[in-house]
Amino acid sequence: MGKLSEKSEDELIDRFKSAFGPPSPGEIWTGDDAAVVELGPNLVFTTDVMTEHVDFELGWATGEDIGYKLVAVNVSDVAAMGATPGKAVATLSVALDLDVGVVDGIVRGMQVASTRWGVDIVGGDISRASELSASLALLGSLEGDAVLRSTARAGDAICVTGALGGAAAGLVALRSGAVDRDALDAEFNQPSGADALAMLAVRQLRPTARLEESRAIARLGASAMIDVSDGLAIDLNRILNASNLGCEVAAAAVPVDPEIAPAIERLPGVLEPAHLALTGGEDFELLFTIEPDRVEDVQVALDEIGTSVTLIGRTTEGGRKIDGEPLSSWMEDSWDHLRGR
Amino acid sequence: MGKLSEKSEDELIDRFKSAFGPPSPGEIWTGDDAAVVELGPNLVFTTDVMTEHVDFELGWATGEDIGYKLVAVNVSDVAAMGATPGKAVATLSVALDLDVGVVDGIVRGMQVASTRWGVDIVGGDISRASELSASLALLGSLEGDAVLRSTARAGDAICVTGALGGAAAGLVALRSGAVDRDALDAEFNQPSGADALAMLAVRQLRPTARLEESRAIARLGASAMIDVSDGLAIDLNRILNASNLGCEVAAAAVPVDPEIAPAIERLPGVLEPAHLALTGGEDFELLFTIEPDRVEDVQVALDEIGTSVTLIGRTTEGGRKIDGEPLSSWMEDSWDHLRGR
Repeated sequence: MGKLSEKSEDELIDRFKSAFGPPSPGEIWTGDDAAVVELGPNLVFTTDVMTEHVDFELGWATGEDIGYKLVAVNVSDVAAMGATPGKAVATLSVALDLDVGVVDGIVRGMQVASTRWGVDIVGGDISRASELSASLALLGSLEGDAVLRSTARAGDAICVTGALGGAAAGLVALRSGAVDRDALDAEFNQPSGADALAMLAVRQLRPTARLEESRAIARLGASAMIDVSDGLAIDLNRILNASNLGCEVAAAAVPVDPEIAPAIERLPGVLEPAHLALTGGEDFELLFTIEPDRVEDVQVALDEIGTSVTLIGRTTEGGRKIDGEPLSSWMEDSWDHLRGR
Repeated sequence: MGKLSEKSEDELIDRFKSAFGPPSPGEIWTGDDAAVVELGPNLVFTTDVMTEHVDFELGWATGEDIGYKLVAVNVSDVAAMGATPGKAVATLSVALDLDVGVVDGIVRGMQVASTRWGVDIVGGDISRASELSASLALLGSLEGDAVLRSTARAGDAICVTGALGGAAAGLVALRSGAVDRDALDAEFNQPSGADALAMLAVRQLRPTARLEESRAIARLGASAMIDVSDGLAIDLNRILNASNLGCEVAAAAVPVDPEIAPAIERLPGVLEPAHLALTGGEDFELLFTIEPDRVEDVQVALDEIGTSVTLIGRTTEGGRKIDGEPLSSWMEDSWDHLRGR
């Protein structure tokens, strides 16, 4: 396959061009100074960057994992606004001694994820760098109003989709070297449930954006929504900050990824699954507030999609508490992208 | 000011929030999962990334230079489509031992440039990295049709705005250490013309996007347009490839930056200003094709803005020639972002 140093920028761009396209009628994607797209007028616009040694290591993440996750995390942001993902541009920064296979993997992973969630990757830019990084900027379209962080009301139910802590446990597993990365590809394509550690690694490497779920939650009247990217405690605090509210959350109610307990002996440093569920980042579940009498409707609607919804507490006009303790004591253990853990 | 390691991600994001805003009525910028903007439905969408050691060195570029140029190069891409820049999201990747003053400078530079060209920076993402890099993804709106690379016609005049080679000469000057970076700030604010080397460094550090010019050129019927980012030879070849045409260009007609000649003794390795004008990248002038009898109209229109337009050749149905020699022989000397020079 060879190293990138043997390729020109134009050759690399061609690899992307042939992977994404042909453009929709009336649009022009790669090949000009900018892409021409039709979208709007009510848009959401987001971007995320992933960097080697911070967000992943090439020792345990393939190009395909990286490309897939880059799309997933951006789709998750658009979903958390109640919007539908549309057009994206990407940047890729690569070291010249990187194997071209990694770049091809990134393209493939972006392709799989963008097909899954209906994203058109319409352009990009490639640069040299000493470490691998990639960014995506994603546009989504809004039909109704956006679901914001700032519009929760006191007395709302606080709910979360799926289960938490799995992605953080998967990161611990991958870093420990206990996961056979080559055995994971089968797990991506057809989850067997055979090995808890492999399931957790998949949660970390190939997160699922809750797009279909987000539409149902928005339609049923969520008052505020965010995706859990930095940990439940931090992300809940963001909604509460934006809405100027307090909370009462029962730690025991927070849904814990069921694969953590059976794998815990093989997760160095992880003592308590429930703690990971409150503090672990990157599950990309949806955390939302809604009138209490609407919770069951949401549960029924998401049950049809196959996703659980759990009531974990209430918003209040008082302080922010989990089991009567300050929310902030959980935030300190949470994820900060700038520092890593 | 301190190092970034003393700041949290949220503190850094706050530095951006307070610099950009308040949001336009009906819009929401930073502070949620994605920004909410109104734009469209006919959009252009582009992105560019700038990386330390490839696009700049902190030894000769300030944070303000980096932020300014990041916006300028993206605006230039939007301008080259005949579109008007609108909303942008940015990513910033920083080493923890970076001085916070550099980040503040980037924010300030982005602010100055985005105000100059009417860009709203509505969101972003920050990551840790071993070297500094920043990307911008910019949306522009189209009123009429986009001006593409692929729609030049045989027999069109080939024209370029301004003069070329200055930014590449500026890069040589900055790398040589002969430029007093601290003396440049006055030059940015009020160009004195006193020192040719300083003028060239300014061309490299703070390029001007030809936005107003691009609108006039598009309105007057340019058949194809590109901004000169990688060098005249390469960028002309891109138009010719996309339009499936040849060319006849007179090297002597190509406008050479007037500051190169007086500074040439202090530009190590630069032997011929004219060669730099044909091969040097990052001038961000507009290269366009248009019916020959329209050239004078464009010259008159851009003269009012204070920008020259030079006829440098014609498109043909034959081969691609500069002074009768193959265009490709000039392309080899041109800029490739992946390798640097």
